[in-house]
Amino acid sequence: MKRIEHIGIAVKDLEAANKTYATVMGAEHYKTETVESEGVSTSFFQVGESKIELLAATNPESPIAKFIEKRGEGIHHIAFYVDDINTEIERLKGEGFRLLNEIPKPGADNKLVAFMHPKDVNGVLVELCQEK
Amino acid sequence: MKRIEHIGIAVKDLEAANKTYATVMGAEHYKTETVESEGVSTSFFQVGESKIELLAATNPESPIAKFIEKRGEGIHHIAFYVDDINTEIERLKGEGFRLLNEIPKPGADNKLVAFMHPKDVNGVLVELCQEK
Repeated sequence: MKRIEHIGIAVKDLEAANKTYATVMGAEHYKTETVESEGVSTSFFQVGESKIELLAATNPESPIAKFIEKRGEGIHHIAFYVDDINTEIERLKGEGFRLLNEIPKPGADNKLVAFMHPKDVNGVLVELCQEK
Repeated sequence: MKRIEHIGIAVKDLEAANKTYATVMGAEHYKTETVESEGVSTSFFQVGESKIELLAATNPESPIAKFIEKRGEGIHHIAFYVDDINTEIERLKGEGFRLLNEIPKPGADNKLVAFMHPKDVNGVLVELCQEK
């Protein structure tokens, strides 16, 4: 893993959360993006070499809606940047880790992404991501 | 906020989690430290300019023991590095945010730390930290 690419935070109201985080971070979000295939609207804040990604559900079946229903708002995942996502997936599979998707899929911010099974990583949803 | 200083992850068994994360991160932890005043044993992994901090309880009254009892293992907090923690505390208080401790206290890794109230930050426990 090269760096923390971003931390994903599940929020109910993206617009309200954008204001909160702009104040906390001391800088406005620099972009928003909706990924309909994942049922999320996102906004991004830069902090050092990493980003904070706020995630709001676009429909009640969205994984983010279900997460918030179950656990409330809060940190949803950590994404690590990798140079070659397929190599990293093979390496982790070889070490016995389960991937939620073994074939990288398009994510927000022009990335290819894959998720590790949280049960294999002490309850943490780990995302691997690589620039498309 | 200058950068993500670390992400704190609550784990039950520090030794087992060290092995898991060494494999995931592709590098061993570079130090361990116990902070008795906080009831935690910690270990650190470097990733880019940030760290992963694994946190295990040293006693049943530890905030980490209570967190795991309530929510299971997982991400416990995000820490942002700030140049001047007292200035940042005053700024955030002025913006209406509540701090769990308004006076910085000693944390792991030679830091002064203060925590924001998770209810004010969309369910995220935000730590501010500054080198001592």
